[in-house]
Amino acid sequence: MDEFGIIRRFFTREPGAAGVVVGIGDDGAVVEPTPGLQQVQVIDTLVEGVHFPSNMPAADVGYRAVAVNLSDIASMGARPRWMTLALTLRDKDESWIEAFANGLFDAAGEYDVALIGGDTTRGDEVVASVHISGEVAADDVLLRSGARAGDMLYVTGTLGDAGAGLSLFEAGIPDEYLVTRFLKPAARIHEGLLLAGRARAAIDLSDGFVADLRKLLDAGGVGAEIDVGKLPLSDALCARFTDEEAMAFALTGGDDYELCFAAQPDDVSGVAGITAVGLVTDGPDLVCRRDGAVVDVDEGGYRHFR
Amino acid sequence: MDEFGIIRRFFTREPGAAGVVVGIGDDGAVVEPTPGLQQVQVIDTLVEGVHFPSNMPAADVGYRAVAVNLSDIASMGARPRWMTLALTLRDKDESWIEAFANGLFDAAGEYDVALIGGDTTRGDEVVASVHISGEVAADDVLLRSGARAGDMLYVTGTLGDAGAGLSLFEAGIPDEYLVTRFLKPAARIHEGLLLAGRARAAIDLSDGFVADLRKLLDAGGVGAEIDVGKLPLSDALCARFTDEEAMAFALTGGDDYELCFAAQPDDVSGVAGITAVGLVTDGPDLVCRRDGAVVDVDEGGYRHFR
Repeated sequence: MDEFGIIRRFFTREPGAAGVVVGIGDDGAVVEPTPGLQQVQVIDTLVEGVHFPSNMPAADVGYRAVAVNLSDIASMGARPRWMTLALTLRDKDESWIEAFANGLFDAAGEYDVALIGGDTTRGDEVVASVHISGEVAADDVLLRSGARAGDMLYVTGTLGDAGAGLSLFEAGIPDEYLVTRFLKPAARIHEGLLLAGRARAAIDLSDGFVADLRKLLDAGGVGAEIDVGKLPLSDALCARFTDEEAMAFALTGGDDYELCFAAQPDDVSGVAGITAVGLVTDGPDLVCRRDGAVVDVDEGGYRHFR
Repeated sequence: MDEFGIIRRFFTREPGAAGVVVGIGDDGAVVEPTPGLQQVQVIDTLVEGVHFPSNMPAADVGYRAVAVNLSDIASMGARPRWMTLALTLRDKDESWIEAFANGLFDAAGEYDVALIGGDTTRGDEVVASVHISGEVAADDVLLRSGARAGDMLYVTGTLGDAGAGLSLFEAGIPDEYLVTRFLKPAARIHEGLLLAGRARAAIDLSDGFVADLRKLLDAGGVGAEIDVGKLPLSDALCARFTDEEAMAFALTGGDDYELCFAAQPDDVSGVAGITAVGLVTDGPDLVCRRDGAVVDVDEGGYRHFR
C-alpha cells in the first residue's frame, strides 16, 4: 500500500465537518474561518522512543498526538476546529496504522476537531506531527504573559498522575487510573473555554508544574509563592506512593496536560475543578513553602522522555 | 542547547509580520484571518534519505521544506500567509541548524510567508514538517477536480529539470541550472494567483507530469490527449541530455513543482510562462502522442526519492 492508499484507507472518514469546504484528497484543505474570531495555531511532534515508549499501544500514540496539541489550544482559551497530520512511519504494519488512526479519531471526536489533511512518509522511526487550528475572540485569548502581583495561581485537575503513570508503565506495574492518565491525557478544552477572557495568563503543564510555572512567571516578569501542601493530588497517586514521592511527581512530573493560570479569584469563582495553589509576587523568585517552611524544588522538570 | 534555546537562537526573527498577533514563544500562535476569505492549509514532510539526500546542503533542505508546501498553496490559487515548523533533528550540529534556518527564511522572505511557531525535537534522522496557511476568495480556489472535456491542458515553466538535476547531483556532475532546479525549487505562487478564478482545475507537479496529471484527470472523471512534442523543455536539459532522456525526465521526473492546469484558452490568455500541452477528453484514458503516433508512457512517476 503506498501513501495514497494509507491515507484513503485509514485517515479519510469525515465527509462534512463544520467549516470544512475541502477536506482530504486535494493539494490542500480549504476551511471557512468564523468571521470576527482570531485563529490559534499549534504544532507538536511525538517521536518514538523520545516522547513515547516504543511499546506504547498505537491507539494511545494516536490519541496522544492529538491531545498534546489540544492542550496547547486549551491553554490559549481557544476552541479547536481543524487538524492536519504529518506521519512518518517505520514500516507498513497495517494493524499499527489502523490502531493509531482509531486513537487519533477518538481524540478528534471527543473534542470536535476535524482531520482535514496530512502527509504520510517513510522513515526509520515513527514521527507524528499534528497541527491544530482553533478559534478565539480577540479579547479572550490567554497568553503566558499577563500575570500580575496579587493574582492567585491555580491549576486544573490533579498533578503528578501522568509522571507516576509513566513510571508504573515502564516498570510493568498495572494501575489503571495512573497509567491511563499517562497514556490518554485529557486536554482541558472545556476549562480553557471557561477561563478565556477571565484568567490573566495561562500555560499547559507538559514539562512539569515547576518548570512550566517558571515559564509563565518569566513571561509576565513576576515571581510566585506556592504552598505545595495545596497541590491537588489524586487518591490513586496518594494510595500508590509515599507522600514524598507523590509530591515529587506533582512538582516535577511531566505530561499532566493540566492548565496552570493566574487570575483574580472573583473572575474565576464559577469555574469548577480548579485549585488555588499560590500567589503571584513582584520579585522574579519562585518560592515553594510547605507548612510555612521554604522547600527546595528542582526546576528542571521531568525530562526522562524529552 | 535545549529545544527552547534552538528556537530562540535560530528560528525567532520576525517581530511583526502582517496578520500575526502572537508569534513564536507562547503555547500557540495567534493570527488574524482576512475577513471574507477562505483559508487553505497544507502540510508536507521531508525525511532525510527519502525526500532529500543526506549530503544535500542544509540551506537547501530548509528552502525546500518551505517551497514544496508553497507549491501546494500555489496549486490551490491561494496567497501564502503563515507557516509553522515541526523539526526533528538527528544531532545538535549548530551550523547545520543555522544553515537550515537561513534557507527556510530565504524561501519565507521570497514568498512573504511568516514563521509563527514550531516544535523542535530529537530523533534518529532529520524530519522537517512544514504547515502553511494561505488565503483565497471562495470563488477563486483551484481544485484538482473541475476539468471538463474540451478544456486545454497547460503547464507552467519547463518540465524535467529537477529530475535531471537530481541525477546529476547524485552523480556529482556540476550543472548549475539543472541542479539548482532540483535543490531550490521555485513555487509558482505568482502564477497560481493569476490562475485563481480562471483555471478550472490545477495540481502541482511533485511526483512527475504523467503521474500528477493522472490524479487531476481522475478527480475530474475525464481523460486527456497529450502532445508530448509540446512539453516545454529547458535549453539546459536539451543541451545535457539526448532527446529521449530529456523527454523521459519531462514525463516522469519528479520534483519540478510546476503547475499543471485545465482551462479554456480565453480565460488564461493573459498569463505569461504557460504552455498548452494537450486537451481534456471525455474518456478516462490518458493518451500521449508524438508526431501523431501514440507513445507508451509509464504512469508510475518518479519514485526514486519517495
